[in-house]
Amino acid sequence: MTTASHAPVSLSTCPPTVAVLGATGAVGRELVLLLEQRDFSLDSLKLLASPRSAGTRLPFRGETLTVEAVSEETLAGVDLVLASAGGSVSRRWAPVMGTHGTLLIDNSSAFRLDPCVPLVVPEVNLDTASRHQGIVANPNCTTILLLLALAPLRRLAPLRRVVVSTYQSASGAGAQAMAELKTTSRDVLHDRPPRNRVLPYSLAFNLFLHNSPLAENGYCEEELKMLRESRKILAQPDLRLSATCVRVPVLRAHAEAVNIEFDRPVPVDDARRALAQAPGVTLMDDHADNRFPMPSDVTGKDAVAVGRIRQDLSHPNGLELWLCGDQIRKGAALNAVQIAEAMVRHGWLKPPSPRQLDQDAPVLQP
Amino acid sequence: MTTASHAPVSLSTCPPTVAVLGATGAVGRELVLLLEQRDFSLDSLKLLASPRSAGTRLPFRGETLTVEAVSEETLAGVDLVLASAGGSVSRRWAPVMGTHGTLLIDNSSAFRLDPCVPLVVPEVNLDTASRHQGIVANPNCTTILLLLALAPLRRLAPLRRVVVSTYQSASGAGAQAMAELKTTSRDVLHDRPPRNRVLPYSLAFNLFLHNSPLAENGYCEEELKMLRESRKILAQPDLRLSATCVRVPVLRAHAEAVNIEFDRPVPVDDARRALAQAPGVTLMDDHADNRFPMPSDVTGKDAVAVGRIRQDLSHPNGLELWLCGDQIRKGAALNAVQIAEAMVRHGWLKPPSPRQLDQDAPVLQP
Repeated sequence: MTTASHAPVSLSTCPPTVAVLGATGAVGRELVLLLEQRDFSLDSLKLLASPRSAGTRLPFRGETLTVEAVSEETLAGVDLVLASAGGSVSRRWAPVMGTHGTLLIDNSSAFRLDPCVPLVVPEVNLDTASRHQGIVANPNCTTILLLLALAPLRRLAPLRRVVVSTYQSASGAGAQAMAELKTTSRDVLHDRPPRNRVLPYSLAFNLFLHNSPLAENGYCEEELKMLRESRKILAQPDLRLSATCVRVPVLRAHAEAVNIEFDRPVPVDDARRALAQAPGVTLMDDHADNRFPMPSDVTGKDAVAVGRIRQDLSHPNGLELWLCGDQIRKGAALNAVQIAEAMVRHGWLKPPSPRQLDQDAPVLQP
Repeated sequence: MTTASHAPVSLSTCPPTVAVLGATGAVGRELVLLLEQRDFSLDSLKLLASPRSAGTRLPFRGETLTVEAVSEETLAGVDLVLASAGGSVSRRWAPVMGTHGTLLIDNSSAFRLDPCVPLVVPEVNLDTASRHQGIVANPNCTTILLLLALAPLRRLAPLRRVVVSTYQSASGAGAQAMAELKTTSRDVLHDRPPRNRVLPYSLAFNLFLHNSPLAENGYCEEELKMLRESRKILAQPDLRLSATCVRVPVLRAHAEAVNIEFDRPVPVDDARRALAQAPGVTLMDDHADNRFPMPSDVTGKDAVAVGRIRQDLSHPNGLELWLCGDQIRKGAALNAVQIAEAMVRHGWLKPPSPRQLDQDAPVLQP
């Protein structure tokens, strides 16, 4: 990492103009809330969305902002865009931001695996963000939560293999899916057949394998994201990881059961100590009271809660653990805002060399 | 297995007197329902429960039966008891049944690991039931569902290691827990704090690690049951298995994400073919339509649904699969009734040698 070559921009005297793209979605609203709660230093905030959502009014720092339709005009003059409007929207507008010199911190999967785009969990690989070429990608929710636990542990011993099963809340499918979980639950409680339109099946008192498209190997996209994004963020292309991703009837926090194989035995106490000191992690590992993380513990919370750390009975080099994290917060919006905060703090908003942006960023072509 | 030594009892002309012990519980009611639905040949049916539940009236074959308090008197003359009233009740009354020569098919965990007690999944190890000494144990729900998938696969190659994460419904904690999941869900939908009394935490739009007592190694009892019972049923004491058991807000069907390591590679197509032909299994593995088992598919159904069978990306000898089964039905009551049916069919109701029962059954001492 060579940050010395960056022209440090003194942004404390020149705060950026910020836009949230996809401001009316579940993650978009949380982005706006976090910019307010964390007192993010900005010159002005624009709320952008599709023309369909334009006109929506949202509160910010005691004022009411009106959502505008995203366009070349509304993007002009913006220094930093926090986007959570889906991959196609990010692909559509990234080239415009590129010509404006606007930094895009993108919550979609559009650019995550592009070698020119840093994929960042600030607690794990913030340094890579300094080498951006106009885009920094926010990983998938399940990946972020998993890596907050894996990163401190792999300092104890190299990781060999991870087998993970997820318990993913409705929020990962958006605000409408959260609302549908409530309406279909009401249906079931009133002995009516549940009517689902947003999710492929009713999630009320039910669960199903993540319904993202299947690859030929039988894994769904969500599962392959966990593999590929983890490899990129940990800079460990040989990491072996197999995931089973499941949607469960929980509103906004995810859980994961994680089986980790190291290249040598890792004592449980060492793992516990490493996680207790890890940034972004709350150790909740109370074996005496049989009390471990639940979605209800972490809803609205920043940290990922980790517990039930135990020696894997089935492998001498294995550990088992369980974690929960707020999908909308650390799984999406908070991680993006933390990236933005760090980039402002380090003066990394502008790419290290604009020349690189022009020559090496095929990703900016939609 | 030597069934030839049994004196075959022609039970078609002499059907047994049957009692359901714990008849008012979720599993007890299902036992009564299954005896009716499956036209179980019996001389008469007694419904037994704690004195607290005595007097409850339940329908059976067009009549209404009254639940009686379990006692030496009410147990007298019963040939076969199907018990689902908890370990302490089974321990209390098993010696009485022993002196009466009554066969106990026990759904509790009291005798499952006793070397004198067969632990039976009829599709997997029915032959062991012939060697009973008055008690046959029904395995834990999660174990039964898992083994219906593992047993046909291990005919393809020896099993080495299993890593499993469960998604267990409220029914596993009893009828009151199912009712509480509904009342607490109503609380949340009405913005009231959920009030839980049966479960340790509110399960409404929430989930938590199985709250059975923890062993010193950090695993809970439910997880260790899966290990120990699987080893016993498969007669494979070296099987390595690590489980994470999780209670989810689903009413009565469990799901499991299963990672299986064999001692050599097993082609996915071979696994699919073996499971398609396996008794008690429905293959639901529609990759073209991205359609795999859900709890709502199997609620009230006999078979365990298995799907999303895929080569484990993280191990050359690994397969991943997903399964769902009705916890009350195949996970408990149906398995017990299937054991009973087979034992009547084979004339195994009385132990092969009463002498053995007296001398070698310390388990019958409470």
